Formats: sequence, structure tokens, C-alpha cells
Amino acid sequence: MIKGLKIFTTNCGIKYKNRDDLLVITFDKAANVAGVLTSSSMPASPVIWCKKNLRQGVARALVVNAGNANAFTGKFGDETVLKTAQTIAAETNCKESEIFISSTGVIGEILKYELITNAIPSMLKTQISAELDWEKASKAIMTTDTKPKLVKKFTEISGKKIEIVGFAKGSGMIAPNMATMLGYIFTDANISSKILQELLTEITNETFNSITVDSDQSTNDTVLLFATKTAENIEISNANSADLENFKTALHEVALELAKMIVIDGEGAKKLIEVEVEGAQNKEQAKLVAFSIANSPLVKTAIAGCDPNWGRIVMAVGKSCAETSPEKIIVKIGNHILTQNGAKHPEYEEKLVHEYLKNSEVKILVNLGIGSSSNKVWTCDLNEEYIKINKDYRS
Amino acid sequence: MIKGLKIFTTNCGIKYKNRDDLLVITFDKAANVAGVLTSSSMPASPVIWCKKNLRQGVARALVVNAGNANAFTGKFGDETVLKTAQTIAAETNCKESEIFISSTGVIGEILKYELITNAIPSMLKTQISAELDWEKASKAIMTTDTKPKLVKKFTEISGKKIEIVGFAKGSGMIAPNMATMLGYIFTDANISSKILQELLTEITNETFNSITVDSDQSTNDTVLLFATKTAENIEISNANSADLENFKTALHEVALELAKMIVIDGEGAKKLIEVEVEGAQNKEQAKLVAFSIANSPLVKTAIAGCDPNWGRIVMAVGKSCAETSPEKIIVKIGNHILTQNGAKHPEYEEKLVHEYLKNSEVKILVNLGIGSSSNKVWTCDLNEEYIKINKDYRS
Repeated sequence: MIKGLKIFTTNCGIKYKNRDDLLVITFDKAANVAGVLTSSSMPASPVIWCKKNLRQGVARALVVNAGNANAFTGKFGDETVLKTAQTIAAETNCKESEIFISSTGVIGEILKYELITNAIPSMLKTQISAELDWEKASKAIMTTDTKPKLVKKFTEISGKKIEIVGFAKGSGMIAPNMATMLGYIFTDANISSKILQELLTEITNETFNSITVDSDQSTNDTVLLFATKTAENIEISNANSADLENFKTALHEVALELAKMIVIDGEGAKKLIEVEVEGAQNKEQAKLVAFSIANSPLVKTAIAGCDPNWGRIVMAVGKSCAETSPEKIIVKIGNHILTQNGAKHPEYEEKLVHEYLKNSEVKILVNLGIGSSSNKVWTCDLNEEYIKINKDYRS
Repeated sequence: MIKGLKIFTTNCGIKYKNRDDLLVITFDKAANVAGVLTSSSMPASPVIWCKKNLRQGVARALVVNAGNANAFTGKFGDETVLKTAQTIAAETNCKESEIFISSTGVIGEILKYELITNAIPSMLKTQISAELDWEKASKAIMTTDTKPKLVKKFTEISGKKIEIVGFAKGSGMIAPNMATMLGYIFTDANISSKILQELLTEITNETFNSITVDSDQSTNDTVLLFATKTAENIEISNANSADLENFKTALHEVALELAKMIVIDGEGAKKLIEVEVEGAQNKEQAKLVAFSIANSPLVKTAIAGCDPNWGRIVMAVGKSCAETSPEKIIVKIGNHILTQNGAKHPEYEEKLVHEYLKNSEVKILVNLGIGSSSNKVWTCDLNEEYIKINKDYRS
């Protein structure tokens, strides 16, 4: 159990009934913190707030609400964030700059701060069970998610047992460079916020920033990593320390599992699709082509229909990579090689690939034949339900 | 009536039953020709063939088949194109390099050349009606299109009456830089192929390359412009000639009308959406942001549901334009101003915009507030039918 933090949830009446929509996590002592935020030029007020506070790398509380994104709300949005921070700071006797805030939901609607500030005092007085209720936390931040997303791992640093717990939300507006995706990871490890930031930036790039549901990127995306330091290992302040290897692996696993859970719960999704591109000139090119395939609505609908219409994969390569050509590429679905010398492979059997595509996890591999770099991204299939969900999201 | 050409169509049995799937248009004398082809690095065999022949700018025939794209078919694909050209050249007594060929349909399936070459001789012997049957031509090239797309205009060059006829196909895999879109424009004007190419490149950029149905770009996109020279105007060989103004306007209208017809017939589409971006630093930036909005599945599904969820428009601006910020932008739907000072406009009435969105044509305007350039693109809404059509395209 990660010591030094407390979890509180409640319904404060923003949008949903009969479920919690407000989460507060407080740290008994200052935790180290690192974060990766949306690159959108239309960032929500809480994103701007977190960006500023991350410079100091110290956290005493996290506040997250679901049902309203507090994005594109101008000075009203800034006021809501400030009032929220002031209220928590007064209740927990810390500085406003030590409070981290996230919001998720509809863009452009004013989020009345009273809903949150009125709820906080009584919320923080609720009886806390001895065991931390991570599941409650992961449920309080859901919007169109159909399942909570929670991962726990144990590792060690120089002989001390270390715990890592992460939870996340997100199933639409999910695309590279953060989407309406909120991810929070907690550990009791004693690691400086500078090192936490280095690890998080590197790992986010290969996990949360390597998934797409619909190619749309949100105004609110946030991943935060908190370290309570309560495991009492000797503080690590060198990112290349051998002592960090196990921790780094475990942190990567937590982030990747959460990222995949978001894709699997993509709006209307029925399948997880892994797209790997190899034989590229560099990792960026490999990722670009992989995302071109993963974002193609035609590829995604074909897989939804278990249709081995691999011409659409070729199309997606063709539109994203000027450097390759038909003769150079190899396309595989699962273990089935589909192409050779710029045409269909002579031993390709469509029926077998059709059967393979009935699996809930599907792998696509493309070799561009122009280099030795590779990269991997994850997406989901595209079904009628995606349209249904997004046609009347607000009704 | 454009003199100097003949139109032939037939069913040659590639895929469809009970409809024509092969089109041949022959020119009595060499026509001037210009073309714009897909920028995909996986171009289909007929695209490569046209690219080579365009260098000479002379056409004696056009051959188009529907039902098979002859793309990613390697040496088999090249053979089909060559045999087709040889057959037409022998029948019409011209050079192979004067034959232009296009294909549309499934990618990666061998297109048996015998189907085409066996059909051609008897096809060219069929009785021709005195009036050219453009509608038959526009129907023979359809795939998932629900309607033929045909436009006729009259104009004049230095006192001579000039006719322009264009037809096109396309409703899926439609995106910037050519999609599975085939467009053919014919005129009797006497204009050099060099000038035709200049006009077509410029106009395509603002019409066929300014539309998107699903952001996917095809391996077969082709727009060709033929001039039979039978109107007997004095040949124009300067693109800036005042005599060309009327023609240029009419050609632009033909191309834009065809482009919009493709969007309106987008797979599952019910609405035409015009996205205009102004106040940009340059035209490229304006087009990039306009396409970010036009390609966003969340924007397109919201409009399908007549839901004024304009936060998604803000999101699409935010992910595509780092240079602007919430305070700078203005978002309008129809005549309704939605935003002011980075927040919802105080006089915004959601109900009115909801009513407006019930129209079959919808306009979105975004001012980025950072410059004076503008650009316009067109797309359609995204409905469940798009998914249904593409889940089992081949079944």
C-alpha cells in the first residue's frame, strides 16, 4: 500500500447522477511530481494551471472532476481553478501552487466553482478506510468510458519494495500527443521530481502518446506522476542509475497497460489493433506511417468487419511515406504475409486472414524496406457505435 | 455539343452485373490534355502510365474501368495497362502513348486484361447516337457512388462559344491531394496543353484538393482535362491572356461543382459542410486548420446529430495551429457567433444553432486572429452508414 496519501470521492452534481464525479487525493507530506500535458493551443484552464505548478515539482493534492472540461471558458475557467485550489489549500494547510487540477467533459460550458468548493470541506471529513480505494478513484473520473482503468505493479529500488499504481480515463477524442485522456500514476518511491519528469516524458512518448481512437486531440490531456517517497529508499537523482532499471520497466508497464485499456475501451471499439512499422529510416517516420494506418477510418472499419481488405493498409502507407514504393514494402496481418514484389503474395489465403481478424487483438506489421528503425502504436476498430455515441454525446 | 469525340460504354464483367463498368472516349483528332494525379507513393499502374503520357500532352483516347483499382498489382498491373493501350491504339490507329487509362475499385486484386481487351473491338463498333451520352459515361465509372456527377457549362473565348463538360466519381477514400476520385473534363476550346496544365493545377488545388470525406487518400486519384480544339478559337498560349478569364471562371465552376458533388455523395453523408478559415498567417495554414476541422470525426458526428457541440471545433483548431490562442479566435456556425474572448459568446443561443444545423448545407467559419489569409474546404457529416458501407465493402 502506498503510504502518505488519502483518496476522497463524491458526487458534486456537475453532470452525472448516482455516481461520483469529483476526486481529491491529498498527500500527507509534499510529494514529488512530474507531468505531461496537451500540446493543444487551446489548453483548458486546469492544464495551464498544472503547467505552471509543475515547475516547482511539489504536490500536496490532486483534484479531478468529470462532466465538464472547463476548457475554452476564459476568465471564468481560471476563476474556477483558482477557487478550487484556494479551498483545498485552506483545508490542507498548503500552498495553492502545490495543488494539481484536471477536468474532463464538455468543452465551452462554464464550470461553476461553487459545485466543487462547496463539496470539498465535507468530502475531506469523510471516514477513510485503511485500504486505499483506488477503484473508487478510477471510477470518479470516467466520462464515456465503459470501464475503470486501473493498474498496480510492484518493483524494487536498491532492495526496497516499491509500489506503482496508475489509473486513467479516456475513450473518445484520443489521439497522439495526448487526448481527452487523464492518467495518474502514484508511487511510494523516493525519486526526485527532475528524474520523474525525465522518465515520464520518455515513457509517455511510447505509451500514452502512441495510441489513437479517433485522431482527435483534446484540450485537457494530462498525465501526472506522483512520488510520495514513503518507501524510504535512498533518493535517486541520476536517471541512468542501475538502481532505476526495475522501476523504469514497471513504470513503462503501468503506462502501457493503461494506454491499451483506453484503446480497448475506445468508443464503440471491439478490437485492439497493434500497428508496427519497421524498416523505416528513423523512429519518427515509423510512427508517422503507423499512425497513418491506425487513424485510417477505412482500415479501422475493414477490421471491424473482419474484412482482410489490406489494400487500405497499402493506401495508408502510400499517403504518409513518399520515400518507399510498392516493391519495397511487406505487409503482414498476424503471421500472414500479404504482399511480395508490389503485388499480392502468391500464397496469400484470404480465408485464413478473415478467420484471424475475428480475434479481439489484431496485429498489423508493415516493413517499409528503406531502413532499420521501427515503432509501434495502438488503436481500435471503428464501429457504428462510435457514431451513435458522438452524435448525441450531450443529449 | 463538343465536336471531335465519341463516347462508348459497356459491361465487361469486372465486378458489377446489370450496369456498364467500362468507358472509352475516343478523339477524332489528337486532343490537348493536362492532368493531376495522386501524390501517393503507392500509385496504381494506370496512374504511372498517365504520368508518363502527360509529358507529351496529346490524347487520342481515354479508358476507365470501375470495380477494380488495378493498384498494388505489380507487373500484372503494368501488363493490363499495356495490353489495354495496345488494343485501343490498334483499333483507332494511334500511338499507345496517346491513350489515357484510369481504374477504380478494390486495391490488390489482379485486373485480368482480357476482360477489357476482348470487350473493346465490339464496343467501338456500337452505333453512336448523334448527341453525346455524357450521362452514360458518368454512370459507367461509379463504384460506391449513389449518383452520377456531371456538370456542363458554356463560356466564350474571343467571341467563340466554348463548351466545358466534366464528370467525376468518388464517395469514399476521399481526402486532400486526390482520393479515389476520378474526374474528367472536356472542352472544345483551342488551348495548348501547357496552358491547360497550368489552369488545371491551380484550379484543382482550390476544388478537388480542397475536399475530404474520410481523410484517406487513394492510390488511383486522377483528374484529366482534354481540349478537342474543335471550337476553332485562335489558340491561346499565354495563361494570363485576358481572353482566358471567362474560360478560367467556367472551368473553376465545373471543377468546384464536381468536387462538391463528390462530398455530398460521401459515403453515408447527409449534409455538405463548408469550412472556412480566415485571419491566418498564410493560405497553407488556413487550409491545414480547415482540414483539421473537416477531418475531425467528432466535429462530423456532432453535425450529423445537429448538435452544436462547438467545443470540438475549438479542439480541432487547437490540435492543428500552435500559433493562435483561445482569446484570439472567433468561431461561427452559419451567422451565429459562438465565441468571444476565449469563452462562449454571451448572446449565444444553442437552440438557434441546433435549428440551423438541420439544414442540408452547413457553414463553419473560424477566424484565427493572427493574419489576413483565408481558405475554404468542403466535407460531409459522418453517419453510421459510412461504417456499414465500409465494413463490408467487398461482400
